[in-house]
Amino acid sequence: MYILVNGEYKKRDEVAIDLEDRGHQFGDGVYEVIRVYDGAFFAMKEHMERFIRSAEEIKIDLPYTIGELTGQLEELLRLNKTEDGGIYMQVTRGAAARKHLFPGKDTRPELTAYPIPCSKPAKEQEVGISLSLLEDVRWLRCDIKSLNLLGNVLAKQEAHDRGAYEALLHRSGMITEGSSSNFYGVKNGSVFTHPANNLILNGVTRMKVEELCRQNGIEFLEERLSTEGLVSLDEAFITSTTSEVIPVIKVDEGKIGEGIPGPVTRKLQKLFDELIAKETKVVEK
Amino acid sequence: MYILVNGEYKKRDEVAIDLEDRGHQFGDGVYEVIRVYDGAFFAMKEHMERFIRSAEEIKIDLPYTIGELTGQLEELLRLNKTEDGGIYMQVTRGAAARKHLFPGKDTRPELTAYPIPCSKPAKEQEVGISLSLLEDVRWLRCDIKSLNLLGNVLAKQEAHDRGAYEALLHRSGMITEGSSSNFYGVKNGSVFTHPANNLILNGVTRMKVEELCRQNGIEFLEERLSTEGLVSLDEAFITSTTSEVIPVIKVDEGKIGEGIPGPVTRKLQKLFDELIAKETKVVEK
Repeated sequence: MYILVNGEYKKRDEVAIDLEDRGHQFGDGVYEVIRVYDGAFFAMKEHMERFIRSAEEIKIDLPYTIGELTGQLEELLRLNKTEDGGIYMQVTRGAAARKHLFPGKDTRPELTAYPIPCSKPAKEQEVGISLSLLEDVRWLRCDIKSLNLLGNVLAKQEAHDRGAYEALLHRSGMITEGSSSNFYGVKNGSVFTHPANNLILNGVTRMKVEELCRQNGIEFLEERLSTEGLVSLDEAFITSTTSEVIPVIKVDEGKIGEGIPGPVTRKLQKLFDELIAKETKVVEK
Repeated sequence: MYILVNGEYKKRDEVAIDLEDRGHQFGDGVYEVIRVYDGAFFAMKEHMERFIRSAEEIKIDLPYTIGELTGQLEELLRLNKTEDGGIYMQVTRGAAARKHLFPGKDTRPELTAYPIPCSKPAKEQEVGISLSLLEDVRWLRCDIKSLNLLGNVLAKQEAHDRGAYEALLHRSGMITEGSSSNFYGVKNGSVFTHPANNLILNGVTRMKVEELCRQNGIEFLEERLSTEGLVSLDEAFITSTTSEVIPVIKVDEGKIGEGIPGPVTRKLQKLFDELIAKETKVVEK
C-alpha cells in the first residue's frame, strides 16, 4: 500500500509518525474520509472545501491548494489501484516540543492519506438499523472535523455494547446527530434534521441529501427534534460517507413508525444511488 | 534521550508512532506530566492514581500495575540523568485499522514516556500574570486527562495572542478553569474554586493546595465563581504541575484586587515550596 506523506508516496512500512506529532499528543488536526466508487472519487469538491475550512478554523496553514491536493489524491488512487473503497486523509499541526501554544513557523504540518476498505453496508441499507440514545458530551465545535474524537468513539462503543448499530446523541433532550453520522426524522413526508451549526458536523452526504430533497419536492427542514418526539416520527434515517442512507427502524426499545424502512427513506436511497452513478460517471446497470 | 516505550527504553531516533495509532487518529488516550525536582518525582502517587483513573474512564486496559509503572519511570529518570524537569507520559489504545469502535483484544495499548524541560516560572510567580476570559467549548468530561486537547490548545493560543499568559475559561458566565491550570479566587481570606466535577480537571497541584489550606487554617471552598464576580475578588491565582502557584493580577483589562499578588497567594506559594522540599526530600536551603 502507498501512503501519501507531505506530497510524497511512501510504502506503508516506511511511514512513521513522530512521537511529538501534535496529532498524537493533542489531537491537533483535522481529517476527511472520501468515498471511491469504481475508481472515481465521490463529492471530492465538497470534501476538499470542508477540509480547507476545518484546517482554517483551527489555524493550520495547509501547504497545498485544493488543486494540488486533489492531484495528489488522484495519484494515490492510481498507485494503489483503488476501485471501491475510500481515502482517509488527515493533517496535523506537525511535530514540535510539547506545549499547548502553536509551534513556530518552522514546524511543517503533517499531511497523510491512504486507502481504507469501504463497501456499501447493503444489509443495513435494506433492513434498517437500531440506534441507542446517549448524552452528547462532545465539545461545542462539532462543525470542525477534528481529530478530537474521543466523545464519538466512546458513544459508538457504548451504543455497540447495547446492541445498536450507532449512537443517537442528544444535548439536554434535543437530538444532535450520530457518533459518525447525521440523523433525520420524517413526518408527513417532510425531512427534519438538526441545523448545521456548531453542534453537528455538516456531513457531505447531508449536503447531498438536502440537494436531492430540494430537487425532488421533498421538504427539508433544519429543525431540532427532541428525544420525546421520536415516537411521533413516521420514519428516520442516518447518513454518512460510508453509510450513505441507512433507515433507522428502532431507537433503543422504541420502534420508529411501523418499525420498517419507510417510503421517503427508500426514495432518498434510490436518488442517492443514482447520484453516485451520475457523479462517478458509472453507467447505470 | 531515552524514551520509555511499552516497558523498553529506546533512543529518541528509534521511536516511531504508527500511522494508525489511535492517539494519532482519534486522540484516543490519556496522559500525565509529572514534575521532577532535584532528581526526585513530586506527587508521583497522585499522578499515577489519576493516570489509572483516566485510562479506566475511557476503558483502556493498562498492562502495568502502578508499582511496575513507577519503577519504569524511575529507571527512565536514571537513564536520562534528569535532575530538574518533568516526565511526559501517555497511553493510547494502540494501533489498529481505523474505525471508531474499540479494536480487538490483540491490539496492545501504546505507552510512551520521556523527559521534558521544565523549570520554575520564577518571574511569573513573583510579579503575577494576566488571564484572558474565553468561552469554555470543551467536552463535558474534562475530569479525564485525555489527549483531546484541541479546545485547550485553541484557548491557550487565543489568550496568548491577546497578550495574556493563560486563558480563563467560562461556561455561560461561570468560571471553570484555565486551559492547562486550575483557577482560584480569594475573598476575605477564603479560597474559592470550581468543584472537582466533570467540567474541570482535578489538578494534582489543586489537591495539594486544598490539603495545604486545610492544614493551615485557610478556608477552601468548592464554589463556582461568575465572571461578574471577578471584580470583587481580593486575590486570584492559578496552579498546575509546571506553574505551581502563580498569582493572577489581571483578567483582560480588569485588575484583581489591588493588581498585585496578595497575602493568601504568597502564603500558599511558600507552603507549596516547603511541600516540594519535604516530599522530594531536599534539605531546605
